[in-house]
Amino acid sequence: MMPSEELPVLVDLHKNVFFDNETEEVVILDRRKLPEEITQYRCENFEEVAKAIEQMVTQSLGVSPAAGYGIAIAAYEVQEGSKGKMRNNISKAAKRIKNTRPTQTSLHYLIDEMTELAEKTISENGNLFEVLHQRAYEWTEHLMTVSKKLGKHTSDLINDGDTILTHCYGGPAIYLMGEYARKDGKEIDYFCTETRPYLQGARLTSFALSQGDFDVTLVTDGMPAYCFKEGLIDKFITGADRIAMNGAVANKIGTYQIALGAKRHGVPFYALSYTGPDSGTATCEDVDVEERDPQEVKHVRDARISPKEINAFYPAFDCTPPEFVEGIVTDRGVYKPEKVS
Amino acid sequence: MMPSEELPVLVDLHKNVFFDNETEEVVILDRRKLPEEITQYRCENFEEVAKAIEQMVTQSLGVSPAAGYGIAIAAYEVQEGSKGKMRNNISKAAKRIKNTRPTQTSLHYLIDEMTELAEKTISENGNLFEVLHQRAYEWTEHLMTVSKKLGKHTSDLINDGDTILTHCYGGPAIYLMGEYARKDGKEIDYFCTETRPYLQGARLTSFALSQGDFDVTLVTDGMPAYCFKEGLIDKFITGADRIAMNGAVANKIGTYQIALGAKRHGVPFYALSYTGPDSGTATCEDVDVEERDPQEVKHVRDARISPKEINAFYPAFDCTPPEFVEGIVTDRGVYKPEKVS
Repeated sequence: MMPSEELPVLVDLHKNVFFDNETEEVVILDRRKLPEEITQYRCENFEEVAKAIEQMVTQSLGVSPAAGYGIAIAAYEVQEGSKGKMRNNISKAAKRIKNTRPTQTSLHYLIDEMTELAEKTISENGNLFEVLHQRAYEWTEHLMTVSKKLGKHTSDLINDGDTILTHCYGGPAIYLMGEYARKDGKEIDYFCTETRPYLQGARLTSFALSQGDFDVTLVTDGMPAYCFKEGLIDKFITGADRIAMNGAVANKIGTYQIALGAKRHGVPFYALSYTGPDSGTATCEDVDVEERDPQEVKHVRDARISPKEINAFYPAFDCTPPEFVEGIVTDRGVYKPEKVS
Repeated sequence: MMPSEELPVLVDLHKNVFFDNETEEVVILDRRKLPEEITQYRCENFEEVAKAIEQMVTQSLGVSPAAGYGIAIAAYEVQEGSKGKMRNNISKAAKRIKNTRPTQTSLHYLIDEMTELAEKTISENGNLFEVLHQRAYEWTEHLMTVSKKLGKHTSDLINDGDTILTHCYGGPAIYLMGEYARKDGKEIDYFCTETRPYLQGARLTSFALSQGDFDVTLVTDGMPAYCFKEGLIDKFITGADRIAMNGAVANKIGTYQIALGAKRHGVPFYALSYTGPDSGTATCEDVDVEERDPQEVKHVRDARISPKEINAFYPAFDCTPPEFVEGIVTDRGVYKPEKVS
């Protein structure tokens, strides 16, 4: 495993969220300012952490570490207080932070587990902050370990000289697959879609990859099928927000459309699963697509791009059926979609 | 035919370019400022018209009328001069304006025809400006007539209650199909893609349609396949930059990818041909795709959205093979792609 010090700031989740002992704050990399500025957003208490999550300071795999450190700072706030005060603040923090992302179930599991751990530590007169801080760190480290496994398994799929198209920001493994490929003597290039409306591909993926000195080419979301047709792309690889039990891939809006073009031109589509298939999701039919604020479609960052009076539509995700998926990459290896569950 | 006074400013080509007798200027609707401002760009001589075309003040079906009025104002500049001076200025204007769009052959035909007309008029001691002004007006009127025919033929394909998805700005016929459908008692709604990088769908199409009080919904370029899958769209209809002899459709980048999604979900794709099939283009293989300034991909209007140091790629067009095209709409009617030539 490569030491995390070498990783770009966005790729190393320990640099995305950590507790700063000197200033007594939870520090979160502000992804909203990328790529223009690498800025730290500093939180003095759990309420500020909750607001940071709500306001998209961090996203994707940065969210659950932020939640974990939010519970830890809730302990820090009351470390001189009574057991009742400690229980009360942890309970308030857990409720508040869960509400930032009511549908993100993995976040809820971590918070529930940390709440139980808090109760046990308080009962046993342990050092509450130390224990919860340690757990938040371990959780982040777990996500890095999974990311490295995904990166390694994916790099094994890649041939020397391949160009990889990716959509949205697929987490650390998108970068790590290139690092592992390099270690194996394989040079790869990347194409990124800009990923409107939130521009994660343009702002985050291309930034992370360029920090690693990869050759990165940005295209708009309408260009992938043309790039496939022209033979410019060897593999289409993205993260996955959820894997269904039949191997369908729920991911950022646009993924399905790109996967159709990939299939048509014989380009394999692989999806990275950080958490494994979801037992509550049998097929695409079970994926409820969240609709977000349509103002984002009518704006690019702060600038309005359309008349005020028209409507806009912002489904945040889509779902690609298994027949368009070549493989699902998990921390245990790469599976055909029909073998994933 | 509906009187052109009723048409929105972008749809009525006579409002896109005209000669203002009072100020003695060629006036061009500045599409770059839409939808925020409806601004007129004023040209005192052919050089300023040429610059306006180069600088994207007008686009699409606005370009050839601008070229025509550019030749007319070249006559106006020297109307008190000798025959030699007239010939010289027309010749200079023709050369200068052709160079603004070296590959747009329809523009070249109009300018060549107007140059011949100028020579004839000078020889016969006719009123050079009056004759050339009349020709520029007639050319614009011809484009409006074709647009109305395309609009009428397309409206006949539409059912009451249909929702039409369109990509980029497909010219006046996109609006007129809705007007004709209304006259036939059919109410239709529109979805527009934003059409990155130049945002013609967000800025122009949605603006023109909202001026006509149509219900317009803006989506990003990654959303059409999802919209098809959800059953939100009944027809996919765009303009065409070129129709090949086998019925393939060259159009704005992104069209092909959307057409793949449409086919998958049984949504018919129709393309509007303002000029008929191109005898020099047999299939998609004959379409040379122009690459434009990649800086536009790295920016949205004036704001940079990605790191400076990465690459970007901006193929301006793509080509959709005939098996994905349900019909080509021409001024003579609607043809299956295999019957278009």
